Amino acid sequence: MPILGQNQYGKAENRVVRITRDGATHHIKDLNVSVSLSGDMDEVHYSGSNANVLPTDTTKNTVYAFAKEHGIESAEQFGIHLARHFVTSQVPIHRARVRVEEYAWERIENSGEGAHSFVRKGQETRLAQITYDGEQWEVVSGLKDLVVMNSTNSEFWGYVKDKYTTLPEAYDRILATEVSSRWRFNWTDDEQDMPDWETSYEQVRKHMLQAFAETYSLSLQQTLYAMGARIIDHRDEIDEIRFSLPNKHHFLVDLEPFGLKNDTADGAVYFAADRPYGLIEATVLRDGCEAHIPVDLSNL
Amino acid sequence: MPILGQNQYGKAENRVVRITRDGATHHIKDLNVSVSLSGDMDEVHYSGSNANVLPTDTTKNTVYAFAKEHGIESAEQFGIHLARHFVTSQVPIHRARVRVEEYAWERIENSGEGAHSFVRKGQETRLAQITYDGEQWEVVSGLKDLVVMNSTNSEFWGYVKDKYTTLPEAYDRILATEVSSRWRFNWTDDEQDMPDWETSYEQVRKHMLQAFAETYSLSLQQTLYAMGARIIDHRDEIDEIRFSLPNKHHFLVDLEPFGLKNDTADGAVYFAADRPYGLIEATVLRDGCEAHIPVDLSNL
Amino acid sequence: MPILGQNQYGKAENRVVRITRDGATHHIKDLNVSVSLSGDMDEVHYSGSNANVLPTDTTKNTVYAFAKEHGIESAEQFGIHLARHFVTSQVPIHRARVRVEEYAWERIENSGEGAHSFVRKGQETRLAQITYDGEQWEVVSGLKDLVVMNSTNSEFWGYVKDKYTTLPEAYDRILATEVSSRWRFNWTDDEQDMPDWETSYEQVRKHMLQAFAETYSLSLQQTLYAMGARIIDHRDEIDEIRFSLPNKHHFLVDLEPFGLKNDTADGAVYFAADRPYGLIEATVLRDGCEAHIPVDLSNL
Amino acid sequence: MPILGQNQYGKAENRVVRITRDGATHHIKDLNVSVSLSGDMDEVHYSGSNANVLPTDTTKNTVYAFAKEHGIESAEQFGIHLARHFVTSQVPIHRARVRVEEYAWERIENSGEGAHSFVRKGQETRLAQITYDGEQWEVVSGLKDLVVMNSTNSEFWGYVKDKYTTLPEAYDRILATEVSSRWRFNWTDDEQDMPDWETSYEQVRKHMLQAFAETYSLSLQQTLYAMGARIIDHRDEIDEIRFSLPNKHHFLVDLEPFGLKNDTADGAVYFAADRPYGLIEATVLRDGCEAHIPVDLSNL
Repeated sequence: MPILGQNQYGKAENRVVRITRDGATHHIKDLNVSVSLSGDMDEVHYSGSNANVLPTDTTKNTVYAFAKEHGIESAEQFGIHLARHFVTSQVPIHRARVRVEEYAWERIENSGEGAHSFVRKGQETRLAQITYDGEQWEVVSGLKDLVVMNSTNSEFWGYVKDKYTTLPEAYDRILATEVSSRWRFNWTDDEQDMPDWETSYEQVRKHMLQAFAETYSLSLQQTLYAMGARIIDHRDEIDEIRFSLPNKHHFLVDLEPFGLKNDTADGAVYFAADRPYGLIEATVLRDGCEAHIPVDLSNL
Repeated sequence: MPILGQNQYGKAENRVVRITRDGATHHIKDLNVSVSLSGDMDEVHYSGSNANVLPTDTTKNTVYAFAKEHGIESAEQFGIHLARHFVTSQVPIHRARVRVEEYAWERIENSGEGAHSFVRKGQETRLAQITYDGEQWEVVSGLKDLVVMNSTNSEFWGYVKDKYTTLPEAYDRILATEVSSRWRFNWTDDEQDMPDWETSYEQVRKHMLQAFAETYSLSLQQTLYAMGARIIDHRDEIDEIRFSLPNKHHFLVDLEPFGLKNDTADGAVYFAADRPYGLIEATVLRDGCEAHIPVDLSNL
Repeated sequence: MPILGQNQYGKAENRVVRITRDGATHHIKDLNVSVSLSGDMDEVHYSGSNANVLPTDTTKNTVYAFAKEHGIESAEQFGIHLARHFVTSQVPIHRARVRVEEYAWERIENSGEGAHSFVRKGQETRLAQITYDGEQWEVVSGLKDLVVMNSTNSEFWGYVKDKYTTLPEAYDRILATEVSSRWRFNWTDDEQDMPDWETSYEQVRKHMLQAFAETYSLSLQQTLYAMGARIIDHRDEIDEIRFSLPNKHHFLVDLEPFGLKNDTADGAVYFAADRPYGLIEATVLRDGCEAHIPVDLSNL
Repeated sequence: MPILGQNQYGKAENRVVRITRDGATHHIKDLNVSVSLSGDMDEVHYSGSNANVLPTDTTKNTVYAFAKEHGIESAEQFGIHLARHFVTSQVPIHRARVRVEEYAWERIENSGEGAHSFVRKGQETRLAQITYDGEQWEVVSGLKDLVVMNSTNSEFWGYVKDKYTTLPEAYDRILATEVSSRWRFNWTDDEQDMPDWETSYEQVRKHMLQAFAETYSLSLQQTLYAMGARIIDHRDEIDEIRFSLPNKHHFLVDLEPFGLKNDTADGAVYFAADRPYGLIEATVLRDGCEAHIPVDLSNL
């Protein structure tokens, strides 16, 4: 008889918005929360008995009720509340994983009274994944959709040439990518001091952008490592970081047929290509630490 | 025999990036340019004769060559160069329409030398549409994907109630929308002074956001009109503006089954719904002007 | 004072699924319904008075209630019921427009009893737009996302060459497009016999595909006209049809650097490009009829 | 110093179309191919030396050249050719992974000569992933975006009720999902007979649909297991299969406020919800086999 392997279930993409009021000044938390539960779930697969199944509708209700009862201090803290609840309140549930996407908003300046008007920032989406098995925590934070570009200080040459190689070497090119990244905290136990999740996120993001900007790049791999290493070096709370960096190619357009020189000097014109794209992925680890973040952050 | 009606053709979605250098300080223009040409094109439809057809591949080449030759001062100015070229250089082409999407970037602060590092702003997409028939210009600018929210100062009551009405009246609700807008300039002739397209865009955007923020709203229609009227009042160069505003519903979650009160006071929790959504669309015009912007900015 | 121009409002994207049972054999109708209402709506824009406003929530309720009460014979018939209701039951509403997307399903063969298992067909999305002003009807049906390809019998040569033209002529190319089309019926009055909407759709789709397949093409414009003309010729109930046809370019890959000949003979290898793409749009009309379908079916 | 962990790179989303001609009858293969290479790549990350780096541009060229030289017998066979090439031709490359998406086309009936006209089927996307380390093969095939529905023969009751449970039990509900699945072959070695990849895919798909249709469902977990078990039972070449099944909720609309009874008898009207959705994921294994397919097929 075929055997049941790893399984998990829950309610995905619960869109939760919470408004807190500090007098006339309002604050937004805007999350997309997905819950996955695992445990003693063989019977529901083999026979359809739901005796151990907390309905996904209940996980949805719990997300909203907890947003009210506990507030949303940060995506990570909110996920910790939820994961602890599911594992400790339901005997058949042995593991809970909560994934959160967070959308940032900024204020609209307003000549009237109060501060309750916002425009969605629309840059990267912040990510958090909290896993709890009743004993140990794993917190992986991250971001996606952060598009960055260096318009110079990038080269690519000295590579292997085989019979299928036609690419000319480049000594001044655009380097652009859409950063997808996940980083793992070394906080794993309730006994440890918990990181300041909000500060940590802001600092990781800052170092990531600065390492990207300040690296004179001979390959996107080198830039990736520089971004990761800088975060490991500056943020003690993080042991591991993984990146998935599509190389968003910008090709100099050949304008010679029209009598126009289009090199990388002032006024260069590029074609921003969609597909295919180079895809550079790697993990950077604190020395002595093991990797836990899965290899694939995308499905391509 | 079936008759050919309105027809147009061209190359859509030419992705053009141009980098200008001011010493070590670089600047980006990042556009998506679509060209539509019309004119004496009956034969290509009836018989397949391409004798009057400038290939769409040529329109693509022209976009890139013009970015090099003329630069990209603004989306509107670039479209004007292109549209004039097609209509004046090709006898069979009687009308050219150029549509541009523009993506904004902001600088990454960088401790190194030079200023050539950028992060895509990721907020609204700027739009421009330039149409030329050899005599008259029509310039319609716009934006899309600008998501805004007022977390209070919005009510909805006093509406018609028929047998299918169940909605309770609301005296304090979230008002959120994703602004899609187009506005038409009264510049139509090369003899007129051309507006400063960049300043105009920034000012329209600023007034739009402020009118959204400062309007105490009894309906999204009222807010829409306030946004449009403020722009007509403050920007002499604009005669007409149209909005398509989806009402992005945020519903207070019913937490009473869990013994929790969830009203709009501090800490309210909302479900951000996807579909369906209210869709509010209208044009606001300078008194005495005619509407030219099409009624539908979306297909739903 | 700025003036209010054309305006409309309603609930968009109501997802309605209705299951009818013929004993153990079930049938699905799966629609996405958007309602836009216009009329005596100045006050809600100028002052926020909702006295003439039927809430969009009510339009949503009405869509679901009508699906129950009247059934869904076809997308068009369902839209006619709804549009008539809004215009005739609410004095301030002078015009109603109902847009419908319909998703097709096919049966999964099943060795068990009953026929209640389906797989979504996933090909084109069927479209219908019904507009009523209390006197006249306008019904425009359509489809989108129908991707078609001829792997030969397409040429492109004899076109205009200007200084920006580099495209080589092609005597055997792939012709591929993603059809977006709308067609208008000459049924406008309750006194006329109503078309059989289901049969009409199937026949239009069939003629469209066959005209695409059977036309030896010298340009995509010629193919477009052939598709439209065939429908006008064969379907008396239709007076006008518009197409928006992106030319989905398939470029022969240059494999000469690797000693491989890659012409259009057996085994040709193509790169399927994303952007840019040619975009060919035109209306075909029954002789003597006026065009009513808007020029732009897309926003690019 | 921070340490480099797992890393891989290559060109993603190479869109390859190949047309084979059998006289006037043409055949299409339409693939999206992504290549990831791993091996002795420390230096490119640490110092930017590209001495071991075969450019991603070369992997792209290789994909196109191999499509010409070797043809595309199946997605799996094509991936095997490519993966073997990269690992055996480049000393620094120790592992190659090739992922393929395949789009199906069906013929347009055509009254003319030849069979070269196609319409994209538009249903599921076929997937294949081939990994080679110079010794062992791992082939994982799959599909995504296959939307299925049972309009009856689904119940959900007898579940855990905690303080956050409000869901009423259901004795006749719609069960709908969008199948994402991956299955692993036990072919790992060139010495073994290779499966017939095309037949295998068709059979897996058929069994998957039939198990969905024929299972009287007490939970989506039970249906998932039935789908997986049937494939393990019927297809000896497969040892493991994983599913990610979003529960696409269809809620009976409450029409009682309008005096309408809307139960699951004939003519039931449902609201098809977008988010949140249940997400049910599990692996089914041949007895005695180990799981290799990663737990997450999506990022939510």
